[in-house]
Parts: sequence; structure tokens; C-alpha cells
Amino acid sequence: MEQPQQSAGPEEAGAEAGKPPLRVGMVGYAFMGAAHSQGWRTAGRVFDLPLRPVLTALCGRDAAAVRAAADRHGWATTETDWRALIARDDVDLVDICTPGDSHAEIALAALAAGKHVLCEKPLANTVEEAETMAHAAETAFTTRGRLAMVGFNYRRVPATALARRMVAEGRLGPLRHVRVTYLQDWLNDPEFPLTWRLRKELAGSGSLGDLGAHIVDLAQHLVGERLAGVSALTETFVRQRPLPGGPSSGLAGGAGGAAHGTGTVTVDDAAVFTGRFASGALASFEATRYATGRKNALRLELNGERGSLAFDLERLNELWFHDATEPAVHAGFRRILVTEPDHPYLDGWWPPGHGLGYEHTFVHQARDLVHAIAEGRVPEPSFAEGLQVQRVLAAVEESAEKNSVYTPIAD
Amino acid sequence: MEQPQQSAGPEEAGAEAGKPPLRVGMVGYAFMGAAHSQGWRTAGRVFDLPLRPVLTALCGRDAAAVRAAADRHGWATTETDWRALIARDDVDLVDICTPGDSHAEIALAALAAGKHVLCEKPLANTVEEAETMAHAAETAFTTRGRLAMVGFNYRRVPATALARRMVAEGRLGPLRHVRVTYLQDWLNDPEFPLTWRLRKELAGSGSLGDLGAHIVDLAQHLVGERLAGVSALTETFVRQRPLPGGPSSGLAGGAGGAAHGTGTVTVDDAAVFTGRFASGALASFEATRYATGRKNALRLELNGERGSLAFDLERLNELWFHDATEPAVHAGFRRILVTEPDHPYLDGWWPPGHGLGYEHTFVHQARDLVHAIAEGRVPEPSFAEGLQVQRVLAAVEESAEKNSVYTPIAD
Amino acid sequence: MEQPQQSAGPEEAGAEAGKPPLRVGMVGYAFMGAAHSQGWRTAGRVFDLPLRPVLTALCGRDAAAVRAAADRHGWATTETDWRALIARDDVDLVDICTPGDSHAEIALAALAAGKHVLCEKPLANTVEEAETMAHAAETAFTTRGRLAMVGFNYRRVPATALARRMVAEGRLGPLRHVRVTYLQDWLNDPEFPLTWRLRKELAGSGSLGDLGAHIVDLAQHLVGERLAGVSALTETFVRQRPLPGGPSSGLAGGAGGAAHGTGTVTVDDAAVFTGRFASGALASFEATRYATGRKNALRLELNGERGSLAFDLERLNELWFHDATEPAVHAGFRRILVTEPDHPYLDGWWPPGHGLGYEHTFVHQARDLVHAIAEGRVPEPSFAEGLQVQRVLAAVEESAEKNSVYTPIAD
Amino acid sequence: MEQPQQSAGPEEAGAEAGKPPLRVGMVGYAFMGAAHSQGWRTAGRVFDLPLRPVLTALCGRDAAAVRAAADRHGWATTETDWRALIARDDVDLVDICTPGDSHAEIALAALAAGKHVLCEKPLANTVEEAETMAHAAETAFTTRGRLAMVGFNYRRVPATALARRMVAEGRLGPLRHVRVTYLQDWLNDPEFPLTWRLRKELAGSGSLGDLGAHIVDLAQHLVGERLAGVSALTETFVRQRPLPGGPSSGLAGGAGGAAHGTGTVTVDDAAVFTGRFASGALASFEATRYATGRKNALRLELNGERGSLAFDLERLNELWFHDATEPAVHAGFRRILVTEPDHPYLDGWWPPGHGLGYEHTFVHQARDLVHAIAEGRVPEPSFAEGLQVQRVLAAVEESAEKNSVYTPIAD
Repeated sequence: MEQPQQSAGPEEAGAEAGKPPLRVGMVGYAFMGAAHSQGWRTAGRVFDLPLRPVLTALCGRDAAAVRAAADRHGWATTETDWRALIARDDVDLVDICTPGDSHAEIALAALAAGKHVLCEKPLANTVEEAETMAHAAETAFTTRGRLAMVGFNYRRVPATALARRMVAEGRLGPLRHVRVTYLQDWLNDPEFPLTWRLRKELAGSGSLGDLGAHIVDLAQHLVGERLAGVSALTETFVRQRPLPGGPSSGLAGGAGGAAHGTGTVTVDDAAVFTGRFASGALASFEATRYATGRKNALRLELNGERGSLAFDLERLNELWFHDATEPAVHAGFRRILVTEPDHPYLDGWWPPGHGLGYEHTFVHQARDLVHAIAEGRVPEPSFAEGLQVQRVLAAVEESAEKNSVYTPIAD
Repeated sequence: MEQPQQSAGPEEAGAEAGKPPLRVGMVGYAFMGAAHSQGWRTAGRVFDLPLRPVLTALCGRDAAAVRAAADRHGWATTETDWRALIARDDVDLVDICTPGDSHAEIALAALAAGKHVLCEKPLANTVEEAETMAHAAETAFTTRGRLAMVGFNYRRVPATALARRMVAEGRLGPLRHVRVTYLQDWLNDPEFPLTWRLRKELAGSGSLGDLGAHIVDLAQHLVGERLAGVSALTETFVRQRPLPGGPSSGLAGGAGGAAHGTGTVTVDDAAVFTGRFASGALASFEATRYATGRKNALRLELNGERGSLAFDLERLNELWFHDATEPAVHAGFRRILVTEPDHPYLDGWWPPGHGLGYEHTFVHQARDLVHAIAEGRVPEPSFAEGLQVQRVLAAVEESAEKNSVYTPIAD
Repeated sequence: MEQPQQSAGPEEAGAEAGKPPLRVGMVGYAFMGAAHSQGWRTAGRVFDLPLRPVLTALCGRDAAAVRAAADRHGWATTETDWRALIARDDVDLVDICTPGDSHAEIALAALAAGKHVLCEKPLANTVEEAETMAHAAETAFTTRGRLAMVGFNYRRVPATALARRMVAEGRLGPLRHVRVTYLQDWLNDPEFPLTWRLRKELAGSGSLGDLGAHIVDLAQHLVGERLAGVSALTETFVRQRPLPGGPSSGLAGGAGGAAHGTGTVTVDDAAVFTGRFASGALASFEATRYATGRKNALRLELNGERGSLAFDLERLNELWFHDATEPAVHAGFRRILVTEPDHPYLDGWWPPGHGLGYEHTFVHQARDLVHAIAEGRVPEPSFAEGLQVQRVLAAVEESAEKNSVYTPIAD
Repeated sequence: MEQPQQSAGPEEAGAEAGKPPLRVGMVGYAFMGAAHSQGWRTAGRVFDLPLRPVLTALCGRDAAAVRAAADRHGWATTETDWRALIARDDVDLVDICTPGDSHAEIALAALAAGKHVLCEKPLANTVEEAETMAHAAETAFTTRGRLAMVGFNYRRVPATALARRMVAEGRLGPLRHVRVTYLQDWLNDPEFPLTWRLRKELAGSGSLGDLGAHIVDLAQHLVGERLAGVSALTETFVRQRPLPGGPSSGLAGGAGGAAHGTGTVTVDDAAVFTGRFASGALASFEATRYATGRKNALRLELNGERGSLAFDLERLNELWFHDATEPAVHAGFRRILVTEPDHPYLDGWWPPGHGLGYEHTFVHQARDLVHAIAEGRVPEPSFAEGLQVQRVLAAVEESAEKNSVYTPIAD
């Protein structure tokens, strides 16, 4: 069997149409790296983009592993030093999929090198880092037209995008209540090892930064305003966990213990907090990895004077809407199957009822970022928005440390 | 058509079997009065009780209205002064269905007169009143064997009773999370009038005492332990409301305004609060009358290391259970239709799948109270339990006033 | 403790208001008898009826058992011979809750004696019996103003009554599809005994008459037209079952076998059939007692050009409505919680969201029958409607015997 | 910006590992073509395949259109004549995504040319064609080792694959009931035009072949046995429809009418049928495009003596299981979120709770076909299985024509 001569590969969708490339270099290739790869590979196949994303280079510390990942996910070349990646002329955008402790350093360098940046959430592990990043992004935009975006992908579920549209249209009226939970259960097993996500020096925080960041961003995005303050409780249910087994994990380095000993969890296992939005709506939040049986239950409900919306990420093709302007005799929460051609992002996909999945949020994220870059406008969520989320998380931690006292969010 | 000569009426179920009567006198006949009447009338028809409840006397201030209500609901006689009711020799138990501001006075008098007492929730409008009541109940029991119970009827939904049984059996293991909401929406309309429930001097509090009392009691009952402390936000969204229109409402007297003016809402519209249980579980609560589209959504979920339970009062025949001891490949939240003969309270009712409704909780409440009286043991929830709930509500209010600071619950 | 002198018992609600009585004599006191008792006892307590139902006499063959049942359910007197019951002057209405093989004889005698009749479904075990009954009912009405009704209680779930109203209002437009199942699973256990419901000479048929009658009636009622013809398959999965154990069951007499032997099931275990409505809609039906895990799943869906409705008896307070006249972007099946004051039957019950249960259908049935009697108009469903359902069931059986050939329904 | 030198494109995943290619040529590029493209592009990125799929050539009649489609979907080259495609040496597998009337001709030619074949369902428009195809596939396999598969993709939803596994493990015990519907509503609008899917000469049949083929295959696959016979009704609700507007549609050619006239629908709009499985289970089926509000509701339920399973394609990440071997007090239908690593196909995807979508079935289909080819074994579903489904559909049509008489399925 011979190898065909090909005019284009998938990572060059649009080459024939003369579309200019957007050459992506990505740092990190674990869970988020795989998801982002799928997004970059697919966006140009499904949507008619102004630029064609090219999966130019993948970066990771282990040369063999990154080579295998690049092969698997469709990246043309590899690097083992992110500084080398950033130095390449053939990379237009740096996509940061590493743990939070390295976000700031990489992003700042990439922006300084004139690259666009997509950075996974949370933007950083501290407010200070996030401030520096937001400032750098602002400068890169105003001085060189470079763009930076933070990866709150759940804004780009068609159902949440529809929810945002409906709130903006005034269909809910003045909001009274916002309640959001993000429930997972993978730490329920006390024998689950002490991975990097459980160590404060790497992850910054636990459920709060991992899950809480998502729901704070999503709630503020949907409501269209910011939280004014919060009152919080956090808890670490299981404080000692086994260290990860071997060198292959690559995540246990420096934990200060033998591979078969135990180590101390230094992040929160769960956070529950309440808050107020600027216009007076009450909010409640819960982020946990101990909600037995809930696998990915990002659930939200907004109640306004004219209507309500509800969503559950475990059924992500559905948005529930109650229209209180209808006669009570026929009113009720309706299940909108968000798969119609007029729904956000659905023009590129399948017929009604043929649902999408989790990874499609990354396809949509790539799509929107490509458009923003082509048009030279700041994408949403910007680093400034990522910084503001970081401030909310910091206020949550401060409140939890100060006996739950209501803690205003700094501007 | 002639009137038959009858040997017994429904309020005397068991007379032929020589069962002694339990002669009930009830104060108040609005919503709760109708529900309690249905409970007293029906309990002996469905369950084999040791005493036969007799609907002896109904009490209300308006003679004609109370007479019509007695006729409608099956009460033999009427009184217009609750002191006269308590003075009657032919009343064994006083059932208090009035607004919270009169609970203490009536209950104390009834206990002093040697009556058993059933008192609607919340037990009282203040902790002080509740303390006096709990003390009086204790005295009445130890000195005269009289019994007192508070009407937290939601403990007696078959599904919640099953949940309590399963928690007690250890099926959830150590608890991590308790989240409970009680969502209604009848105040969503700003034109809804200023009824007694919106006036602090009559109702004590708003959503907090009305809905929050239920969920605090139910959560503690299901968990089997007490809240250690809370952190709270409360809000009144609509502060001015029209006064109730005419004399027929009977609820606006003394509001100090013309029938067509407006008055000030002096209670909370909504309360969101978090808390900790003694053993470390995190809890979140929300009580509101502004959750558009939610009519009676008392929703709770308990997450433990071995399993989870979920319930929604709008689908009260269902209990959802996740058994985390099963292999993950076959595990999932299961919908237990709580209509099997072995389920709590179901032995008296219909075949599997033939569901019960809201009012059945009052039938079960009557059943359990009759058994407790026949056996001379303190029924649950006792006035002491009602007092403890009151202390939680007071801590919620205190926290809300003190910038949400975490407020321990007094013992 | 003295017995109070009472002016009225529950079975005489309205006596004080001078309402004339409707004196009921009921034959049979098993499952249906208990349900009807609850209906008669409660209707006048909840609704303002023009007549006050009086539970005058209960009839059963075993004197002690019927006495105990009367005491339990609130019937004033007892009879052991239904002919004696019918002969009583103080009985205005005969309520027939026996197995189907005795419906015709009792109903005909009662109508001949000038009584109103309420007869449980199915109306009879054969079309011939049903024809005689319908004819007798017609004669009793035209000659003496006596009324007869068949007990298809599921028309009186608030949600199905609302569905009927919405279809009649044209909200669904021309109907395309009607699909209805009635799924139970209590015969799933092969050791379940051979009760009367499994013997053709007593029950007439199996799932078909028990469950199929309900869904045929309900479907035709909701659609507002009759089935034109059907094509059917029936099956008996377990043909030999243990005979019921002892004399206490009272249902196995004459089965021709020792109490601990086995006997032959002579009815269908399940029936699946399709059909056409007069105006062209396609229909599918399924009635079974072998749908493992489904306890009382009477599920129906109607699809019309302008909208759809769906209902499940296991969640009987909900009606699902899809309004296809709305823009697709916001359309979806909505859950109408059928507990609003404007919903059918809800004016007498509880606030929104405080749901009803199975037995309330019998309260509503009693209410509607009392109104029909007071107004002298033929109640729905009439015996003529019961006869027509019987004809559909006969056509199902005929089709099943004739290789599923499409079998028109006789007029 | 320079174009990077790439060692591999996505369509060559595995090239570095020395994996041999599987060079695909696809005919047709509408809805199914887009879905298959996504499958071929992605399978090697997510799963570790023994061969690496290469999107070698796309074929369509309009040169410009097929070129644009190839560019969009990642195909290296194009052809405008399917015979030319089949003649190419660099194509190993022909993937047929055209309407049913051309399946037989293309598949037979491709098999004769020594290609593997993947053919969209239904296998053919007639039993005769399907027989020829199945015979050719058998010959191609035995004589040359070439493989043929029919594209019943819904076998490859993780939830349905799990259902099949659970049935095969005996978790349901002897089956009693199988009920399956496939409900869509896109023909509800009478102004929807007369596309090729509504013309018998192109589509073979309507809902029956399009939707009914899926549910017949899926039901037989899950049950693990074949239907013995069926009894059917079919209907065409709207018989005249507007002709498609312009040449751009490409589907109306030769319809014999002006673009703005109307034409006759010559296929069924809906089919409802019942049947028996060989071992005695009763089955009911419904396929329609008029189920208002149902967009892609392939719903199935299996009831066995030991358990039940239920599935709805509109919530494709969920499988509902009732285990009747558990005590009734804790039993209930459980929602298995089919996203665990041990679930079928899930090893390649995301963490638990991060659901998949419709298109993933095509990724899984490509994966399974690649494995079958690498191992030289006949893939499932084979052309023989596709033929048997065709025989069921033919029996449905025959029964519908013969007054619904029960019609055995030919072997």
C-alpha cells in the first residue's frame, strides 16, 4: 500500500481557500492538552473560520512522551522547553495547559515574545500573578495587538451560551437568586493518591480553584454582573493521602516522602459560599470532589422576576426555562433541547436532537478565539476577567479564614 | 330520602372495637387547619390505631366562620375562645394551627390544663418563648404524663422517613455534604398583599421561619445530629406591598394603614446560609419565596462516603439513592418509588406505584402522635427539638445581622 | 373521658347547611372498596357539593369481615347479600366494587330498583353484558331519571383533566400519534398465586381488561374520538401458578385444585396493540403486568401538528406540554405542575406544589357524580362509553385470535 | 508566516509508530458524509488503532462542491465518479454515504474490486438488493478476505453497548417486553419540501427505512435474537408537499415538476408495529417524523424477569437499569452515567461525567471496523445482518399492506 500524496491535512483546513494559518504551540498534554488538541483539530472542520489553525508544536519536559503525545494528537513538532517554543518564529499563539503554578511565567514570556495566548483556568494561583498577567495582556493588546484569553470553556456549551443570550434579552427580569454547584466525587476514596491537584504549591487551591473558578466565572458571565462579596466555609475531609506510586506519574516530585508513604493534602476538598451580586441577587455556590455519585454536576439555576433558567452539565444539551409571563395554568419549566440550528454554535453541527458532548466546548473556544484574533478584538473571557475571578476566589479564602465574615470583592 | 341512623361516623373509627377515643380540639382552621383535619379524619381509616381520634371541637374567633369550617372539615362543635376550648373536659389534645405569635400562650395554657399538645411549626416566634414551651412540655410529661409534639410534617413523607432509616442503617457512611433548599415563588409578584406572613410581629420571620424551619429540622433529623454553627445572608427583595383588601381576609387587622395603601414588609424574603454539622459535614441551606417556577421545591441531598440520597418534595413519592459500594460500572442514582408495602407508612395505603400526596404527611403525623400517646412516650419531634430548631434560626438571624460571621448554635 | 355529642360526622358533610343526602350502598370492600370509601368520605370535606354523600351501607358475603371493613372505612351499616342492599329504601346509589363477573347482574338489579349506579371498570366481562347494562342505564335515565357511571377514575387526575381541556381547546391541532402504555410488574414473580384476576371466568381478561380498559378509555377521552380499529398481540408468559393458600383469600374457591397445587392462568399477561383513530391518528397501546420495575406506569403521549402532551401516572401531578407554535429556539417540553388553583379539581385542595395522590381521583369521581345526580344529567363516563371500551377490548381479543388482523370496532 | 514542515497530519495518526495505513475513499458528503469524516479523522487520535485511517479520496458528482467538502472535512483528493474512486489503487476501503438506491451498485462494484466496504444503513432499498450484497460480501470474505459492514452506528453509543453487555451477562433474565420508538418531528411542518427522503424510488421507504431500520437492528442486537414476525400499520399524513426550490438542493432532480409546484410523498410518514421475538418476548416499535417536540428520541426499554434497561438517545450518556434481584425496598431504576473508564469505548475519552455526543458513534464505528480489518474477521453488523433487518422491514410493509396480519420474517 502506498502513501497518498496529500494537498492538505486536517490541521490545515482552509489552506486551499487561501486562508492564513494560525500556528499554535501548546504547553502540556495531559487532560486539558488532549481536549485543546481536539478543539484545534476540529474547529476548522466544523466552522468556516477566517484563519486555519495549525497544530505546529507541542511542548513537554519528557522528549519521548511529548513525541508520542504529539503523534497521538496531531501536532507536527515537539519541544521540551517552553522557552524554546516561545522563541519559535513559526508559532503565533501559545496555548498553556499546564498546572496553575506555571501559568504566569509562561504567559508573561509568551506575551512578551509577541504571541497570542490562551491560558487554561484558573488564570493563576494567586491574585498577584493574575494582576501581572492581566496587565501584561493589556499592554500586549494596546502596544502590539496581541490577544489573551482564559479557558473558561463552560461559557461555550450551547446551553449556557443560550442562557446568557436569554438573560441579556431580559427574559428573566430582575434576578433574585443564583445558585450554582459543581459536584464531583473522585476524592471520595481515601486511597486516591496525593496528586499535584491536592498540593497547594502546585495547584494553588483544591476544589475552589479547579471547580469553584468555573462556577464563579459562569455565574458572573450569565448574570452579566459581578459578585460584590462572599461568605465562605471550606473543608479538607481527608488530610493524609498515599503518595503517588512511581516516577511515571511525574507529579509527586519533591513531595518529601517515599513513594509508598503518605503526604498531607494542603488544599481544600470542598468550598461552600454565599454571596451578593451588585444588583442585589443572592447567590450560593458549592464546589466539591466528595459529592458521591455526582460525576460532573455543574448545576446552576437563575431565578428572576420574569423567569428562571436551569442547567446541569451532566445533561449538557438541555436548558430548562420557566417563563413566568405565561398564564400559570400552562406554565412550567421547559426542557429546551439546545440542538436547533438557531442555537449558539449549532450551525456547524448536526440536525436537531443529535447532541454534542464535553469536548465540543473546546472546539467552540478555538472557534471564538480564532475569530477574535482575525478581527483584532479582545476575546472573552479576557485575562482581566480571569483576574476578577481570582479575586473572588481570594475573597472566598479570606472569608473562610476569617470565620466566614462577609468579604467584599476588591475591584 | 330519609337520614340513616348511624352507629359511627368517620371521626370515631374504631368505636365498635372498643377503642378509647382521643378527643381533639383544634385552634385555627386556615391552610394548616384543613390539613390537620384531613389527618385526624383519615388516620383511623387507614391505620389500625390504639386510640380513635375524635374531631371534638374547632376554635376560631369568628363564630359563623368557625361553624362553617367545622361543618366542612367534620368537627363536632365549635368554640370562639381558645381558653374555653382548653377548659373543656371533653378535649384530650389541643392542636394549635394558628400563626406563630400565639403558639406559646396557647400551648402553655393547654399543657397547664393537662392536655396533650400538637403545635404547628415553627414552635414559636422567639427562642425565649420556645424555651418556656420546651420546659413546660418537659414538666407536663414528667409530672402528668402529658405529651407535646411540634408539627414538622415533612419528617413523615414516606420517602424522607425511608431516607432517615437508610442513614441510620449506615448506608451513606460518614457524611460529607448536606444541601437543602426550600424554594417557592408566591411572592414573586410585587402586587401580592402584605399578609400576616410578611409581618414580623405576627410571623416572627419570613421564609426563614416558614420554610427554613422545615429544612433545618429535616436536615438535622435525617443526618441524626445537630448543626454546630451557621453563616447567613438574608434579604427582603420587595419592601413595600399593598395592604390586604377587605375585612374578609381577616389577616390585616391592625396593620395601621388603609385597605388600599401599602405597608412595609418586616420579614426576610429569602435566606441563604451555610453551616457545619458536629461531625464535620458541610451544609448549605436556602429558603425563599422568590424562586420563580418552583412551587414547593424542598430539595435535599446528602453525600456520604458510602452513598448519597436525594429528594424533591415536588416528587414526593420518590427517593433517589446512589450506592457507592457497587462497582462503578453499574452504579447510579436510582429512583426508589417509595410505595412498597415495606416502606414507612405504606402498609395502610395502596399498591405499589399508587402514590401519595402532600396531605398524607398529616395523616402519618396523627398516626404517630396517637401511638405515642397510647404508649406514653414523648413523640418526635418534641418541643425540645422544636426549641433547638428555633436556636438555629436565631443563629441564622444573628449571623445575617453580624456580617455573616459564623455563629455557633447554643446548646 | 366522655363521648361528645356530635351534630354531624364526616359522612354527613353539609348536613348543617341543609343539603340533602346522597345515601350510598357499596358492594365489595377490597382495594377498590377502600379507594371508593375514601372518595365518598372526603369529597364533601374538600368540595362544596350540592348533596352530601352518606356512607350508608357496605355489603360483602362474610358478615364479620364486612363489619370490620365498615368500621374501618366509615360505613354505617352492613349487608351480606347485595340483593338486600338494593332492596333498602335508605340507599340512593349502589357503588359496585366487585370483580367483573358480577357487575352486570348487580347493576341491572340496582337500576331496576331505581338506584343510581357507579360501577367499577371494566363495565363487564363481555360485550353482551355491557350492552344489556348500557341499555338498562339508558332506560333508567329516560324513564326514571336514574344515572349510571363507570369508574374510569384516571380521567379525573388533574393532569389528565387538564390534558383533555387542552386538546379540546385545539392546542395540539390535528393529532398524528397517540401512544399509551400501562406497565406494572406484580406478576413478574412466577410464584405469585393464581388469584381471581388471573382466571377468565371471574376477571374476563387479564392485563387487557384490568389495565387495557383504562388506557383505551383514557386515550379516547383525551383525543375526543373513538378508535376505528385495532391490531393486537396478546401473550401469557407464565401459564401455571400456585393456587392461593387458604380460605382467608376467598378468591380461589372452585378453582378445582388443592390449595397447594397449581392452576392454569386463563387470561392474558400482556397485550400490545396498534390502532387508528377515526380522523387518522395512529395509536399504540401496551398493557402488561411484567414490566419489571414499572409499578404503575400509565404513560401517554399525544402528538399533534401544533403541540404534544405527555403524562406518567407515576408522577401524576405533572403534565408535559410542548407548544410547537413557539419559536424553535425557545420551545421544549415543559413540566406543568398541575397544582394551580385554576387547574381542574384544584380549587378544593392545597397551595401550588403541594401535590395530590392516587386516591384523589376517587374523591373527584365522587364529586363529579354527585354534581351529575344533583343536576339530573348523565355523568361521564356513561355506561354507553363503558360499552364502547368493551367493544374495543373485544376487538383486541378478536384480532389477537385472528393472527393480528386489523379489526374494526363495532359501533 | 511560514508553513511548518510536518511529519504527520491527523489523518495519519500512528505513522511514526510504523502503523500501516487504511486508505479510505468515501462516496457522498452530506449529513452522513460529515459524520463519517469526523469518525475517520478522530478514531486514531482517541484510540490506539492497529491501522491508521487515511482520508484519501472523497467522491461526489459536482467537482467544485466535492472539492470544497474535501477541503472542509480533510480528504486529500476528490473524484466525481464513484467508479473512478473504486478503480484507484490507493483506496483500501470504500465508505458509502449515498442515498439507499445506489448502495447496492456501489457496494457490489467495490467488493468486486477488492475493497473493504462500509455501507450506510439501510443496507439497500429492497430485500433483493440486500441479498445480492450479502452474498457478495460473503464471497469477498471467503475468497479474498475483504470485509463489509453496515453502518448501524447506534450499536456504538457507549450506553447501548453497555446494555448489550448486560443482557449478554444475563442481568435481565428471560425477556418479556421490548419496546422501542424512534421519534422525530421534522416533517410536522406541511411546508417542508419533498426531498429525496420522501421519494420511494430514492429512499426505498420513509420513516421505516430511515428510523425503523435503526430500531429493528438495535432491538435485535440488544436482545441477542431475531424477530419472528410482525404486525404493522403505516401512514402518510401529508401526501402533497412543495418541491424543493432550486438546483442547489441537488436532491430534486427528475422529480418531474416545476421547482415551485408540489409533488406526491411516496413513502410512509410513520410506522407502528408489534412483533414477537423467537423466545417469546413481545415487542412494539414506532418510527415517525411527526412526533412534535421529539427531535431524536430513540427510546428503548427491555423488561426481563430479573431486570430492566431503558435508554433515550436524547440523553445518550445515560443507561437506566432496574435490578429486580434487589430487595424491593431499595430497588429502583438507576441512572448509570455511561462515562466510566470501564464502560464501552470510554477508555479513550474524558473523565467520568464528561459526556460524549452523537458523532462519537462514528468514531467508535471507525475504531471497530479498523480492528476487524486488522484482524481479518467479519465486522458487526455484517451485510448478512443488514439483509436480515431488510427482511424485517419488508415484512412490516407486507403486513401493513395486508391489513396488519401477522407476518413471519423470512430466514
